[in-house]
Amino acid sequence: MRGVILHAPGDVRVGQREDPKIEQPTDAIIRVTASCVCGSDLWPYRGVEPVDRPAPMGHEYVGIVQETGSAVRDIRPGQFVIGSFWASDNTCEICRAGYQSSCVHRVLMGTIGTQAELARIPLADGTLVATPEVPGDDLVPSLLAASDVLGTGWFGAVAAEVQPGRTVVVVGDGAVGLLAILAALQLGAERIIAMSRHESRQKLALEFGATDIVTERGDDGVATVKELTGGLGAHSVIEAVGTQESMLQAIRSARPGGHVGFVGVAHGVELPGEVLFSSAVHLHGGPAPVRRFLPELIELICDRAIEPGRVFDLTLPLDQAADGYRAMDERRAIKTLLRP
Amino acid sequence: MRGVILHAPGDVRVGQREDPKIEQPTDAIIRVTASCVCGSDLWPYRGVEPVDRPAPMGHEYVGIVQETGSAVRDIRPGQFVIGSFWASDNTCEICRAGYQSSCVHRVLMGTIGTQAELARIPLADGTLVATPEVPGDDLVPSLLAASDVLGTGWFGAVAAEVQPGRTVVVVGDGAVGLLAILAALQLGAERIIAMSRHESRQKLALEFGATDIVTERGDDGVATVKELTGGLGAHSVIEAVGTQESMLQAIRSARPGGHVGFVGVAHGVELPGEVLFSSAVHLHGGPAPVRRFLPELIELICDRAIEPGRVFDLTLPLDQAADGYRAMDERRAIKTLLRP
Repeated sequence: MRGVILHAPGDVRVGQREDPKIEQPTDAIIRVTASCVCGSDLWPYRGVEPVDRPAPMGHEYVGIVQETGSAVRDIRPGQFVIGSFWASDNTCEICRAGYQSSCVHRVLMGTIGTQAELARIPLADGTLVATPEVPGDDLVPSLLAASDVLGTGWFGAVAAEVQPGRTVVVVGDGAVGLLAILAALQLGAERIIAMSRHESRQKLALEFGATDIVTERGDDGVATVKELTGGLGAHSVIEAVGTQESMLQAIRSARPGGHVGFVGVAHGVELPGEVLFSSAVHLHGGPAPVRRFLPELIELICDRAIEPGRVFDLTLPLDQAADGYRAMDERRAIKTLLRP
Repeated sequence: MRGVILHAPGDVRVGQREDPKIEQPTDAIIRVTASCVCGSDLWPYRGVEPVDRPAPMGHEYVGIVQETGSAVRDIRPGQFVIGSFWASDNTCEICRAGYQSSCVHRVLMGTIGTQAELARIPLADGTLVATPEVPGDDLVPSLLAASDVLGTGWFGAVAAEVQPGRTVVVVGDGAVGLLAILAALQLGAERIIAMSRHESRQKLALEFGATDIVTERGDDGVATVKELTGGLGAHSVIEAVGTQESMLQAIRSARPGGHVGFVGVAHGVELPGEVLFSSAVHLHGGPAPVRRFLPELIELICDRAIEPGRVFDLTLPLDQAADGYRAMDERRAIKTLLRP
């Protein structure tokens, strides 16, 4: 089959990969309907994370089940399914507590590489959620978004304890940040302050539910948030970047006793204990347990209550994956959808 | 009046200080029944925090109200009162959310110095809680403990979301850590693992409710906690030290989705973002909003349901404060009570 392979920083190509096979009785093989490029794929693409050898890429996926292992009970060939970037059994104590991304049997889908024609899904019954019927093509981008960026933004909003009546700040205007705005609106936020300095993204932020746009960063950004919140800071702050600056901006934008949900994959962040101590905020985040939210998100999408697929502003055939990476790297595209 | 003054690291003396006066109409003056030495007083005593000039010491206190300002409505002369280390109005939006230690009008009691015969209490109506009647002398140590160490340990347990059925780890066996054990038991913890390597403190830990003692630290300590919790880590971890090692030990002892409540005043802590991200824990802490818990704690103490005053293993007249500091510095005493 064809699949995306990263050979070295900046060098991503579509090539021949071996067809996946059932390796464990709990596996399923899916034919990928759509995959996409993640902001986190750009870390190795940019050489921020090392690339030791040619690596299959991609961890977001929707598709049709082709084959299942002998121990798979609930997932059946022919179903349209969505999973997230960690395969999980959904039965261990950690999964049952809602932290499927830390499942004791978890498998990282990024090592499998779903930017391809076919993909092996470990722990299929735990990992995959099937739609009630095979959805129309127009729903595919939104269902694909649920696989990671929507689920991650949603977790950020839940981790930040977004609730009716609260003022929410979103730091980061990538796909996750934009969908955190959508999530905050769904969860009842009264006011949503988007920190963004890119005009096209500001536009989508407002369409997803942002009530205010703050273009300043750092001290100035924090000062503006304080001004907008009676000097106190926001109840809830969602951090969707993962840098030192964005984490500190998020913590300092929250009021004492407020909640910071951080979902940007941390790179080079060192949080000063004194800042954390004196801020008196709640801090929660990490790899989003997308699986926890999938049933609810799929229902919202199939009911057309939300349209998270709008973050895809570039759709390419799989063979042109390199163009998709480049467009995101150069910030010409928010997110690239790939059709095998 | 006489009061404790820190002149330089290691040089703490009782000397004459000016009698406090009503400065604001919201002030009260109390005659201090008892004060004590806090673990955090040892930071400047040890020179870890700078000592620029002679500083009045102490921020824990119980006493009898002597005089009140013209705007004080609820607190009256003759009452026995308890307050905490931040004076707070208890009416602002932050106080009403339960974060009185971040009150928009807060005043740090440490700058006032309650290791003295008299003390001025700003924002008396918000800061002080009166007991139903003047308590017997035997209750004084426990009521004094509520002023800081019990309130702080209690907040640590609340921040760590201790609940019935949960397994709790307490990192740190100082007065705060020991009283966090007492708090965890009161809040219904099923299992309480105390990390302690001092025999006399282990004894008190067990009496306060610890079910297990772990003497190892660092990697070994984390491994032992994992062993005791089916490989998963604890539901709740209370950090009561404030060092890099103790914070990392606390985070690594919690299971994914678990809660870490940190109340040790952070000194030189730099939390790696990657560790925090991959741990998937909840982190909450800071200066304990003791005022939130005072009414409940006073009731438990007056009902003799808890006896937190047992952490005082040294009682001295105020004039011998220097001996009390030395005993705590050398870890010969857990906590020193001072009687003016």
